[in-house]
Amino acid sequence: VLEIDALCDILEDQLGLDPTRPDISRALAMLVDESSNSKHCDYDHFVRMMVDASNPIQRALTGKIAIPDFVDFCKEVVRIFHDVKKITDGELCNYIPELQKTSQDSFSVALCTIDGQQFAFGDTKHEFAMQGCVAPFLYLAALEEYGIAAVHKMIGREPSGGSFDAVRLNAYDKPHNPMVNTGAITLCSMLHPEMDAADRFGWMASFLQDIGGGKNCRVGFNQPVYLSEKESGDQNFALAYYMKGKGVFGSQGGNLEQFVDLYFQLCATSVTCSSLASMAATLASGGRCPLSGKQKLKTVHVKNCLSGMYSCGMFDYSGAWAFNVGLPAKSGVSGALMIIVPNLMGLVVYSPRLNRYGHSVRGIEFCKRLSKKFSLSVFDQIVAGTSRMSKSKEHTPSAKNTTT
Amino acid sequence: VLEIDALCDILEDQLGLDPTRPDISRALAMLVDESSNSKHCDYDHFVRMMVDASNPIQRALTGKIAIPDFVDFCKEVVRIFHDVKKITDGELCNYIPELQKTSQDSFSVALCTIDGQQFAFGDTKHEFAMQGCVAPFLYLAALEEYGIAAVHKMIGREPSGGSFDAVRLNAYDKPHNPMVNTGAITLCSMLHPEMDAADRFGWMASFLQDIGGGKNCRVGFNQPVYLSEKESGDQNFALAYYMKGKGVFGSQGGNLEQFVDLYFQLCATSVTCSSLASMAATLASGGRCPLSGKQKLKTVHVKNCLSGMYSCGMFDYSGAWAFNVGLPAKSGVSGALMIIVPNLMGLVVYSPRLNRYGHSVRGIEFCKRLSKKFSLSVFDQIVAGTSRMSKSKEHTPSAKNTTT
Amino acid sequence: VLEIDALCDILEDQLGLDPTRPDISRALAMLVDESSNSKHCDYDHFVRMMVDASNPIQRALTGKIAIPDFVDFCKEVVRIFHDVKKITDGELCNYIPELQKTSQDSFSVALCTIDGQQFAFGDTKHEFAMQGCVAPFLYLAALEEYGIAAVHKMIGREPSGGSFDAVRLNAYDKPHNPMVNTGAITLCSMLHPEMDAADRFGWMASFLQDIGGGKNCRVGFNQPVYLSEKESGDQNFALAYYMKGKGVFGSQGGNLEQFVDLYFQLCATSVTCSSLASMAATLASGGRCPLSGKQKLKTVHVKNCLSGMYSCGMFDYSGAWAFNVGLPAKSGVSGALMIIVPNLMGLVVYSPRLNRYGHSVRGIEFCKRLSKKFSLSVFDQIVAGTSRMSKSKEHTPSAKNTTT
Amino acid sequence: VLEIDALCDILEDQLGLDPTRPDISRALAMLVDESSNSKHCDYDHFVRMMVDASNPIQRALTGKIAIPDFVDFCKEVVRIFHDVKKITDGELCNYIPELQKTSQDSFSVALCTIDGQQFAFGDTKHEFAMQGCVAPFLYLAALEEYGIAAVHKMIGREPSGGSFDAVRLNAYDKPHNPMVNTGAITLCSMLHPEMDAADRFGWMASFLQDIGGGKNCRVGFNQPVYLSEKESGDQNFALAYYMKGKGVFGSQGGNLEQFVDLYFQLCATSVTCSSLASMAATLASGGRCPLSGKQKLKTVHVKNCLSGMYSCGMFDYSGAWAFNVGLPAKSGVSGALMIIVPNLMGLVVYSPRLNRYGHSVRGIEFCKRLSKKFSLSVFDQIVAGTSRMSKSKEHTPSAKNTTT
Repeated sequence: VLEIDALCDILEDQLGLDPTRPDISRALAMLVDESSNSKHCDYDHFVRMMVDASNPIQRALTGKIAIPDFVDFCKEVVRIFHDVKKITDGELCNYIPELQKTSQDSFSVALCTIDGQQFAFGDTKHEFAMQGCVAPFLYLAALEEYGIAAVHKMIGREPSGGSFDAVRLNAYDKPHNPMVNTGAITLCSMLHPEMDAADRFGWMASFLQDIGGGKNCRVGFNQPVYLSEKESGDQNFALAYYMKGKGVFGSQGGNLEQFVDLYFQLCATSVTCSSLASMAATLASGGRCPLSGKQKLKTVHVKNCLSGMYSCGMFDYSGAWAFNVGLPAKSGVSGALMIIVPNLMGLVVYSPRLNRYGHSVRGIEFCKRLSKKFSLSVFDQIVAGTSRMSKSKEHTPSAKNTTT
Repeated sequence: VLEIDALCDILEDQLGLDPTRPDISRALAMLVDESSNSKHCDYDHFVRMMVDASNPIQRALTGKIAIPDFVDFCKEVVRIFHDVKKITDGELCNYIPELQKTSQDSFSVALCTIDGQQFAFGDTKHEFAMQGCVAPFLYLAALEEYGIAAVHKMIGREPSGGSFDAVRLNAYDKPHNPMVNTGAITLCSMLHPEMDAADRFGWMASFLQDIGGGKNCRVGFNQPVYLSEKESGDQNFALAYYMKGKGVFGSQGGNLEQFVDLYFQLCATSVTCSSLASMAATLASGGRCPLSGKQKLKTVHVKNCLSGMYSCGMFDYSGAWAFNVGLPAKSGVSGALMIIVPNLMGLVVYSPRLNRYGHSVRGIEFCKRLSKKFSLSVFDQIVAGTSRMSKSKEHTPSAKNTTT
Repeated sequence: VLEIDALCDILEDQLGLDPTRPDISRALAMLVDESSNSKHCDYDHFVRMMVDASNPIQRALTGKIAIPDFVDFCKEVVRIFHDVKKITDGELCNYIPELQKTSQDSFSVALCTIDGQQFAFGDTKHEFAMQGCVAPFLYLAALEEYGIAAVHKMIGREPSGGSFDAVRLNAYDKPHNPMVNTGAITLCSMLHPEMDAADRFGWMASFLQDIGGGKNCRVGFNQPVYLSEKESGDQNFALAYYMKGKGVFGSQGGNLEQFVDLYFQLCATSVTCSSLASMAATLASGGRCPLSGKQKLKTVHVKNCLSGMYSCGMFDYSGAWAFNVGLPAKSGVSGALMIIVPNLMGLVVYSPRLNRYGHSVRGIEFCKRLSKKFSLSVFDQIVAGTSRMSKSKEHTPSAKNTTT
Repeated sequence: VLEIDALCDILEDQLGLDPTRPDISRALAMLVDESSNSKHCDYDHFVRMMVDASNPIQRALTGKIAIPDFVDFCKEVVRIFHDVKKITDGELCNYIPELQKTSQDSFSVALCTIDGQQFAFGDTKHEFAMQGCVAPFLYLAALEEYGIAAVHKMIGREPSGGSFDAVRLNAYDKPHNPMVNTGAITLCSMLHPEMDAADRFGWMASFLQDIGGGKNCRVGFNQPVYLSEKESGDQNFALAYYMKGKGVFGSQGGNLEQFVDLYFQLCATSVTCSSLASMAATLASGGRCPLSGKQKLKTVHVKNCLSGMYSCGMFDYSGAWAFNVGLPAKSGVSGALMIIVPNLMGLVVYSPRLNRYGHSVRGIEFCKRLSKKFSLSVFDQIVAGTSRMSKSKEHTPSAKNTTT
């Protein structure tokens, strides 16, 4: 007989899966159902249940899961964490006074695979403002609500070749892309103008939580950061007025204060490393939330978003990032760095010391090392890839450490 | 019994494979070997041979090949070809006089998969100068000969945010990346300075031919284009002198005329759609030439090259390209457009009518439609992808037309 | 005996002088004083009075006046006026809606010499908003109140090399110069922050009127233009927020709305061609108002202002202007163009049709022709100049038409 | 009786005039002619000769000369010289190796008034390459030979807003102005292409010497500088090829090597402080050479040249220069700084320590102090100016030290 509790421990400790997750607890229940003793499952019944390839427990136990050697993988994450922790370069964000109060040494990392395997390490309780990390979700919200055509009628798709807050529009007097501040503010101008301010923010907060798996996904609000940013947000007001003057918000112009205010609110939305990693995992799996099992976003929208993050997410550091990490990413001046490993996982590193481009120093170093260690770069698929149109060629495992 | 000739016809007509290819002809020979009649193979023997998973004939016949439904795939290519042929926008390259003499309507397409399946259509005999398409190979040649560190000590990795021939260096007075003219000329300065001019060009021509599969890969030289470009190559001389003044070529400065001359020669190197597609296929398969079966380039170098092509290969059109096609690419002002579908194929479209960015109008349109039809974008892997670290999850075929 | 009335007529009609001007009426009174008949002056007395070289009537009648041949000069002005009137190129300012309502064909010119000779022609009753023409006076106000060091601690002195409303600061994060919008808004931030809004505007309006000779100098306010500009002034708000973000207004930041509002008010301050020409004349005479006879501005401040106008006043058209006209100038998008001929006169042309640089088309053409006709360019002094350090060399008349 | 020798001493020592100058020696001869003793002149005869206002000796002795108090003026020059000598900031030009060999401490100043008064102090025998100081003369040569229209068909008139050797053309693909390197090279392409190289350089050398007063004006050639600049002149070749590519030299393109070579030759043309000051004096007097008394250049060409020097001569330092010195000027990377005080004098300061803009540190400081001391700025004429159209108003002396 099989101890159900022992099975739960294996799922949680060895594979990072939450046994209370709807689909897993359902599968566990089925194991138990026909047994006389609710704590055990007899072997025959177990084998019968395991035949079903869609059973998440079967998949997990037979290695048909994003990261089968999850314990080893996490050990490596921790090893890199400790290495990177030694780096003490970088400065706290200097233009939002409230962010100056952050503890410089706070450092955490969290990941969530497309099969919902979760791991977090370090100062994991620490909540931080999303800042720029909200931009991809804002873009997705607009795509979901209004469609690709409507969004890109207002915003371009090219790297801006400048910093995130440059006062520049493209040759058609539109923001260069949805990842720079001009783009994000323009997205704020599109989003449910018919709602009042509270509803609009509430709608967006729900949207984020939903993507991250529902009520367990921590989405809060950092009022001091919001007020501080609002007070010192001259550059964003400059961008907004500049765009209004150029007709970005239409001939009517609209309520510029409201647009910028929503943007400040979204930037001040707070998350933990884990909750943000859950959201990122939904992007990694093409819009299907691995924790709730629901398709939350259209895959084509996620694809557009990842493409934009890949090209534009790291601003004037995008080129070096593409060479060294090679993954869609977005960083925030709070020190958050979110990367998407398509078809594998979402990962978030938080450390508030920034380099001169406004990216987390430890975050970048962590991602460089992890990407190299596991060949995560988009172009690493070549190393051990499957011909993507082939019918049944066996898959070569690529989780092997390619650099050891 | 099985007719060997019939088998050859199947391989060639149905799967685009060349039966005279060393590994295939060797496998064919083995089939024949033990049979009394060299034209037939008895069924038992055939089955015995087919057990070997590394037998290219077995793989081809069981669908374990890049594009199993090759005939259907090629039909779609032809259909798109005919649609795109209707476009007559764009102008011949106006700054190399000799290119003005090209027939405006010449149009051809060729592809080669990572398993060596080949297809070409249109004006396939037409030879054209590689122009900018030579840059990725030049970059690879330098990486292979001198290593990543040595090359990137001299050249950056960021998109330049400008046109291909802009007189600009990055903040460290280096070319922005290996794909712009400044980068390519700098690579020419590195390449075997100890050889005399003839040997140096010969070395590079061999390098190209080798990557394309050897002596069957057509690599010629267009003397009129070379002379014409040399005569009108003021911009490239300007770039070279500018770089020399900035110390790009070192404190000695070196033989600037020689660098630029090599660059003009390489730009004037002529290929057919098919021969260039063969070279591209080697990049698609991580450096292993599918026609010769030999590993010609280090995978890490190919990865760097594809990353650079993805970020910088289409210059100031790179962002829109990433959204609309999403594949590493490089174009030449002769009208060639080479794209790499990692793990699937190399593809080349040739049509000399250029848009204002200097890219082939039909080439871009062809790639847009093909990428959309078959979800070839790097970020399309999400749609039907495999968790890349999983051990044995079955591969879901993605060759299905996603848009029909 | 001399008829006083006839003398007045000569002064007014032949020399453009106002007999009611304090110094002239005083001189006239002295002529009359000792005569029995208040309408006449006997010859002996006249000669005695005329010995005094500081007597303005003596100076006027003996040609010791800015433009002795005033009638001929004005005829030439009228001739050029009629020629230039034929030009109907240019468009009304398109970004301040209220300015679109202006009559396109309104055209006037006025001048005032350093000896107070006045002439106006055309639509002389028309009042127009000063717009950019207020910038030199704003600069002078700040210099007078706070001194050169304090002003240039906040604002640079270089041409910006861009348009008047470009979102750019110089390498030290300061406005490039006092003539561009960023500079003018910064000056508004300096000016009497201790006053309330009404007093502050009142103070500046008095300052302008004083420079223009006192209560006869028309200085009004165009409320519709003010409101219109405020409504559509996004670009200026963008500039202000951008500067606030860069710390231009100090670490406190100050009341940005107030700064921009003052700027809009000053831009909407309305003048006639004549009243603006009176102000310009004070600059031409080094700060001494020719109409009131009072030193209103420090000469060193006027010198700085003229130098700035010469280098930066015409923005990205400054170079061509220097070659073709060669005089300190400032234009406003209302269609006003004010030029200073040092030591000779201030001149204003008004015509609201603008070229693509935002300058009055007729204004520029008028100035080109006048400058050429009378060799007014700063560098024309070479033609007929006096060695400026010589003690008593006779002055060679330069009023001769150099191009006839 | 008057001792002729004593008179000569007065002219030379007190007024800086050369008694052997043609017009002066002629006037001296006339004094002597009718006297019995060739060494003396009797008083009556002297008075009779002095009646002639065009007699240079009369003018000099009666103060009708550029700088009557020449001795005092020169004392002040020497005083400033010694003050400025204390400054040891700045670096030798680092991109022309030969210029690195110059003695860092060499320092000299020379001036020549529009009446031919000459003074030189410091290391006056030192010859230095003209470098950029040749540009105004090259511009004048082209204007004299081909006219304003022909020259400005090829070259613009606007400040470039960049450094002297920026690889940029204006919006019409022409050099921004004749003072930047692109402009100077373009002028070299225009100048007597029908001559062979030796004649062309000879022609230009004669042109320079002629402007400077003829055979006494030292114009040499610094062969090492020429060779050094040629060897390291990559930036200028870059400019030339860039311009050729843009069609600046016409559709034929012309002999680019020849253009650049002439430019290098002209830059390597060597002068002393005095000989360059003589040339500058001819510009100060509107084209009339004060030493030979001949009109060497059309005044309108000189006016254009001074206007260009004022706006563009100091490159990206032009604005601060206009505020602080306010005079047409041109500097060379050899350390020469030539300024023109219109209607007064040409002045040259030589000191090879350069600031980061490539201007002589001591040269700039010297000019600032001299301009302030004597109110030499173009806009200082306001302080003590004559109404320029007035007929006979007495001239107010302005040679008084305005700052003591």
